[in-house]
Amino acid sequence: MAKNPTSLQKVQVRPRLRVMRGNEIALGPGRVDLLELIEKTGSLRSAAQAMGISYMRAWNLIRYTNQCLSKPAIKTVRGGKTGGGARLTDSGKEIIALYRRMERESQKASRQPLARLKKLLKP
Amino acid sequence: MAKNPTSLQKVQVRPRLRVMRGNEIALGPGRVDLLELIEKTGSLRSAAQAMGISYMRAWNLIRYTNQCLSKPAIKTVRGGKTGGGARLTDSGKEIIALYRRMERESQKASRQPLARLKKLLKP
Repeated sequence: MAKNPTSLQKVQVRPRLRVMRGNEIALGPGRVDLLELIEKTGSLRSAAQAMGISYMRAWNLIRYTNQCLSKPAIKTVRGGKTGGGARLTDSGKEIIALYRRMERESQKASRQPLARLKKLLKP
Repeated sequence: MAKNPTSLQKVQVRPRLRVMRGNEIALGPGRVDLLELIEKTGSLRSAAQAMGISYMRAWNLIRYTNQCLSKPAIKTVRGGKTGGGARLTDSGKEIIALYRRMERESQKASRQPLARLKKLLKP
């Protein structure tokens, strides 16, 4: 008997965590993805392209993120032979690590209720 | 000396959890809010209005949610003296409870990394 392909799909929780300060989002999944892509590509333009957002939007996100922090997460380098670029600071790297840890902890903590929830989903 | 009002704002994590089956969102924060509003108002139309979405969109969200479940979360009642309405099933109530529990567990689990993250935010 052929197996139903939908029954093979993994059920899991994907936490999208917003760090709120009052009613403001100080940090969220999109901004953390952007920081990570800047770390990977060394360029705000490449990171924006990879996320499918405009350079201006990426620039504003970074500016706003830096404003929320004691020390900036990103340093931009203008001009020069390499045409400028963007680099993560130590503070930026720590922020990514802490945010990803929150996601992992959150996923672990959801396991028990998720196991019960799975039974209510169609097999 | 006057206190800086921004330093009084509470920093907290707001988890927006997506229950994924493969690449599909089986359940997310919007749908759970909608279920809760239906429970509160007894009407899909009122729930849609409270969420600022169209009746048609709410109807599609419910139809899709029911499709993902072994037993439907919502039963709609058409016509009659009260002009129809929507009611949560026991399965629907359990889904809300489990989802909210996942959120609480997720928030608790984020506490430690959040405490460190707070120190990187502007006071």
